[in-house]
Amino acid sequence: MPRIRELDIYQSQLPTGPHNAITDVAGVAVGHFTLIAGEGAWTGHGPFRTGVTLIVPHEGNVYEAKVGAAVHTINGFGKVAGFEQVRELGNLETPIALTSTLNVPRVADALMTLAIEQNPHIGLGFAATGRQGYASVNPVVGETSDGFLSDMQARPIGLAEVRAALADASTGPVAEGVVGAGTGTSCYGWKGGIGTASRLLPERGHRFTVGALVQSNFGRAEELTIAGVPVGQHVQPPPGRRVEDGSIMIVLATDAPLEARQLGRLCQRAAFGLARTGSTCHGGSGDFVIAFSTTNRVPDRPERVVGEQTAVYEQPIMSLFALAVVEAVEEAIYNSLLMARTVVGRDGNTRHGLPADEVVKVMRRYGRF
Amino acid sequence: MPRIRELDIYQSQLPTGPHNAITDVAGVAVGHFTLIAGEGAWTGHGPFRTGVTLIVPHEGNVYEAKVGAAVHTINGFGKVAGFEQVRELGNLETPIALTSTLNVPRVADALMTLAIEQNPHIGLGFAATGRQGYASVNPVVGETSDGFLSDMQARPIGLAEVRAALADASTGPVAEGVVGAGTGTSCYGWKGGIGTASRLLPERGHRFTVGALVQSNFGRAEELTIAGVPVGQHVQPPPGRRVEDGSIMIVLATDAPLEARQLGRLCQRAAFGLARTGSTCHGGSGDFVIAFSTTNRVPDRPERVVGEQTAVYEQPIMSLFALAVVEAVEEAIYNSLLMARTVVGRDGNTRHGLPADEVVKVMRRYGRF
Amino acid sequence: MPRIRELDIYQSQLPTGPHNAITDVAGVAVGHFTLIAGEGAWTGHGPFRTGVTLIVPHEGNVYEAKVGAAVHTINGFGKVAGFEQVRELGNLETPIALTSTLNVPRVADALMTLAIEQNPHIGLGFAATGRQGYASVNPVVGETSDGFLSDMQARPIGLAEVRAALADASTGPVAEGVVGAGTGTSCYGWKGGIGTASRLLPERGHRFTVGALVQSNFGRAEELTIAGVPVGQHVQPPPGRRVEDGSIMIVLATDAPLEARQLGRLCQRAAFGLARTGSTCHGGSGDFVIAFSTTNRVPDRPERVVGEQTAVYEQPIMSLFALAVVEAVEEAIYNSLLMARTVVGRDGNTRHGLPADEVVKVMRRYGRF
Amino acid sequence: MPRIRELDIYQSQLPTGPHNAITDVAGVAVGHFTLIAGEGAWTGHGPFRTGVTLIVPHEGNVYEAKVGAAVHTINGFGKVAGFEQVRELGNLETPIALTSTLNVPRVADALMTLAIEQNPHIGLGFAATGRQGYASVNPVVGETSDGFLSDMQARPIGLAEVRAALADASTGPVAEGVVGAGTGTSCYGWKGGIGTASRLLPERGHRFTVGALVQSNFGRAEELTIAGVPVGQHVQPPPGRRVEDGSIMIVLATDAPLEARQLGRLCQRAAFGLARTGSTCHGGSGDFVIAFSTTNRVPDRPERVVGEQTAVYEQPIMSLFALAVVEAVEEAIYNSLLMARTVVGRDGNTRHGLPADEVVKVMRRYGRF
Repeated sequence: MPRIRELDIYQSQLPTGPHNAITDVAGVAVGHFTLIAGEGAWTGHGPFRTGVTLIVPHEGNVYEAKVGAAVHTINGFGKVAGFEQVRELGNLETPIALTSTLNVPRVADALMTLAIEQNPHIGLGFAATGRQGYASVNPVVGETSDGFLSDMQARPIGLAEVRAALADASTGPVAEGVVGAGTGTSCYGWKGGIGTASRLLPERGHRFTVGALVQSNFGRAEELTIAGVPVGQHVQPPPGRRVEDGSIMIVLATDAPLEARQLGRLCQRAAFGLARTGSTCHGGSGDFVIAFSTTNRVPDRPERVVGEQTAVYEQPIMSLFALAVVEAVEEAIYNSLLMARTVVGRDGNTRHGLPADEVVKVMRRYGRF
Repeated sequence: MPRIRELDIYQSQLPTGPHNAITDVAGVAVGHFTLIAGEGAWTGHGPFRTGVTLIVPHEGNVYEAKVGAAVHTINGFGKVAGFEQVRELGNLETPIALTSTLNVPRVADALMTLAIEQNPHIGLGFAATGRQGYASVNPVVGETSDGFLSDMQARPIGLAEVRAALADASTGPVAEGVVGAGTGTSCYGWKGGIGTASRLLPERGHRFTVGALVQSNFGRAEELTIAGVPVGQHVQPPPGRRVEDGSIMIVLATDAPLEARQLGRLCQRAAFGLARTGSTCHGGSGDFVIAFSTTNRVPDRPERVVGEQTAVYEQPIMSLFALAVVEAVEEAIYNSLLMARTVVGRDGNTRHGLPADEVVKVMRRYGRF
Repeated sequence: MPRIRELDIYQSQLPTGPHNAITDVAGVAVGHFTLIAGEGAWTGHGPFRTGVTLIVPHEGNVYEAKVGAAVHTINGFGKVAGFEQVRELGNLETPIALTSTLNVPRVADALMTLAIEQNPHIGLGFAATGRQGYASVNPVVGETSDGFLSDMQARPIGLAEVRAALADASTGPVAEGVVGAGTGTSCYGWKGGIGTASRLLPERGHRFTVGALVQSNFGRAEELTIAGVPVGQHVQPPPGRRVEDGSIMIVLATDAPLEARQLGRLCQRAAFGLARTGSTCHGGSGDFVIAFSTTNRVPDRPERVVGEQTAVYEQPIMSLFALAVVEAVEEAIYNSLLMARTVVGRDGNTRHGLPADEVVKVMRRYGRF
Repeated sequence: MPRIRELDIYQSQLPTGPHNAITDVAGVAVGHFTLIAGEGAWTGHGPFRTGVTLIVPHEGNVYEAKVGAAVHTINGFGKVAGFEQVRELGNLETPIALTSTLNVPRVADALMTLAIEQNPHIGLGFAATGRQGYASVNPVVGETSDGFLSDMQARPIGLAEVRAALADASTGPVAEGVVGAGTGTSCYGWKGGIGTASRLLPERGHRFTVGALVQSNFGRAEELTIAGVPVGQHVQPPPGRRVEDGSIMIVLATDAPLEARQLGRLCQRAAFGLARTGSTCHGGSGDFVIAFSTTNRVPDRPERVVGEQTAVYEQPIMSLFALAVVEAVEEAIYNSLLMARTVVGRDGNTRHGLPADEVVKVMRRYGRF
């Protein structure tokens, strides 16, 4: 299965980073745990086509060195965890986890356990030092529903699975398609999943990188648009059960030292990338965006009240950030589709992989390359 | 100049209303005042290529019979008036006015004068009746900048001009292009302006109408996309001064009795229509959405605290509203471009009308019709 | 331990309901599970002074008959679950649970299990009927930290405990103080906990009820103010470890058929009740408000798109709702303090119950009664 | 007329700055224009008891050197101007003006004129340099209604009056009570007006200053609470026409280099200061907060995309900022009342000045000093 760049049907205005992935933002790592277990009829504990994906902002202790962050809700029909604190404090203190809708609490609980293992004073305070406060931790978890292919009720992703995803986390190329939180999702009537892309801003002073990673799980087949071509009106999945509504999680990363308000402006642009793929933002979708900056760090217990920080005067460069976000989100969605193979799930429910050759044929017919 | 439907290059999933205009929502009227005055160099009071457009929710006294409303900010680099009260109370008590950026206060002041003329107790109370409260009025005004073609500093639109726009207001077909608040705007490097469109929801219970009207003033020429075709990469305006940033005002109307929260959900979808035309939501844009319902009426001085109202359970139909909004906004933007003729403004600054024949040629090359 | 009304030191402008509790809103039930286990030094699994409190909007299936709801964040340093969906859809589909900060995910997971037991299609869809959609469920959970008295790390509240709280739920009088989610909390340097109160609006058309329930866990001792008297400057807890920051969860209920926007206006007023008790809204607090209406019902799968609903024109009565909220929140906080007895928790950490007699003495000195 | 400090009935936890005024924040200037004209019956153009107050962030060109800013709406029944852009860009580029409700547009227009005079490229661009963009300007104006005492319909405050207020602006002591935007307002049934106060944070690293200025215009007489004493239950204005609803504008300034998100956290605390004076946040109020930092400067046309800036790690100090805001807002409201003399306005409508001696008597009876 090819990424869209390999098909010679897609061009962007901005160049990509070396991996064309969110991991092109230095220090960002991605890890997956994929659960494919059982076949046939629903048993009450399976079959499972699900998983969890972690986006780790840096290789250090994220709780100790938080990163500037913002969240944005496009359509809030979803169960994300941790948004209120990000809004208030403008930072992120755990890796971001993506998983199946009903599995959010168990994954949030697992992120807490991992944070406690690394920072054993969480919840207890520093008794020895007499330090006040019984530090809490705010796990940030996103989700979309994989109930069509997987036994979502059973919520099989817990601490062991999240730990495995963390162990899997690495910088460099990112596995896409039917993997991690994308194992059981559907997109535009086809198999969806994880996709990623990145953009480099021009050298106008600073060569900032913007990366996007999506968990795609939305859209009707006839809506699919690729680089402006109404592919979905020509390439249709085999007959089968449709799911009307769906959702998308979008994670943005940058090495620009943006603060929360500025990262919030990046989040707003993600909808424009989503729209380019044909989405009309269905009523039942949970469409959420989380953005973070790897270079805007906030210590958990600052020794001083003030510090010198690099500030970005965003206005001269904001339109470039906007373009980078729009393009990266758009391409990440295409990758999530094209990199996804066919999956047969619970009760024989099937989502087919989008056939790249047919996509290319339609694109050619519409004058692309 | 043709509307896009006349060019046979654009299709929609949902049918349009009879005028394919915001006025297809029964009772909604639109009026323009267009100011084209002076030529050549800036004089300190002209030349002017500007105006004001009014969207009137119903033919009654809007202050007495307010309409349910919501507002949404996509990118808030703009000077809109009246948003806070709409957010709090969920209604609109004046017509919506669109105008030039720096002219917002004078137009807001004019809307106040008109409301006072119709409701002379505003600001004074009912002395005779001993009724308490010194009623205020909340004018809602949107704007984009026409500084390239017009002397924006001079702020020439005042009470007389707003009154003329109100006198011009009518249901039925809506003048588009270089008219009213669209007289001096630019869009995708071409002349922009006023555009409108509408959609009918299927008969699934109720045949609701959604209408959109835009004041288009954003985008770089190379970004223009029509129905997925990268028109802007092939059709370019003659060389001349570019304006990097820009804005759009989007007004949505519906006859569905939606309340404020639900209208807010419609507003969120407007960005998806905007994105379809190529926008990446530049950093300098003021992109705002205002939505209202003509059938959700709120009396100014309700006699009773409770009343029976028709409620919409939006979930079964929300995706249709979303589609209607996305399509209507997209088509309204195309109409705003195609219906706009070339305008030479202050200091000889020129914006050319987008040539429909060249657009059609490109669309054909890309396999459309 | 007395409620504040029994001390003859507090008066309100509006009358209370029969129980002066959130359960005065017809149909609302409250249930607690209280976990007091272990003594002495922290063991890694205890000692525990914690619990969970459920506020059940009505005795039916809340998932099938959702209630109109709104949420509001005063200071978002907290880990509440479920807020995004309430903001989008304006309703609540599970009971509200309150618990200890780090226990939120496990309680959210338990609420999911209970919803699935009652609605077995959640996560699976209706295979037999071919109905589309794999329904999700949005648990709403609030929290404050009880880490000073309890082993918060261990997160001991799970399905069994939430089930016990639900079994305990009843209309009528509500247990206050050291109970449920209030078992381990601290307030103004004293033992805090659960408190509740209610107000009846005057007969101006409709005799609506507003109820409040709080989980109090905030404030420094010297800040405590009761009915305007700076009690905290005179009555101080015995020396011991202070906790600087803290939080409060505020739940509001009403039988007025308010919709989400209107309930949001009620939420805003909760801060005014909180401020009356001396709070300055510390930087480390998670101060959240959740409001719901028992009479604004939303079916999970509406058969029709529109329906008749009773609407409230809130303006003539909004100031009365405001007063009711402010007073009920204020009194609920006083009750949470006065009804709490002394608790010795982990590592011998102790929070003393606020001595009612000393409070009365100070109040008298300040000319109250 | 005394400020509350002179009456020996009020103490604060934090010390005040030298003037106990918003001008204790270095560089901040305040100017008033007061319009008292005409007597007796309403003529259609008077009598007037109104004005405008300007808060100037620094003595330079505020458009060229913008200041970090945030806005917050407690209850949005009001007509403030400029909030959307402050939310998006996090800065302020004009002085803040306060005036009468219906006069907002004319004052916003005047602020534009003044900004254009100082920055003549606004609206035109730099033709000579070929620089792109036709700079706009975002006037920020707050308001409350003075319709009881003044002919609010006539909107008499325009450019000349705003220019006069600017000419009057100075650092140092601030005129309070019946002056500027406070000339015609009512508060707790008495004459309200302009009030101000300030607080110094302890030397914990940095000696930051927080200042508040209010335009008070809200509350029923029986609600007035001073330092916890229910003064309004004992001291009542002479019989006369009551106004149920009302509003307050709160402006906060600090010399701490806070960014927009952090300033937003300060804004949230203003409601707690307001509540201390007895407010229950009536339904008809427009209660708005604007905060700015004099030391967080944003150039209009930054030469570089990044720059070094002093960052505040707010968590260790946030509770002190909160306390400073709560206390300064509370005391500013008391000053606005106590410094206001009796005013007879249009149609003989009268608001009496709150008699300080009677207040002192009641305070003593309640054991204060």
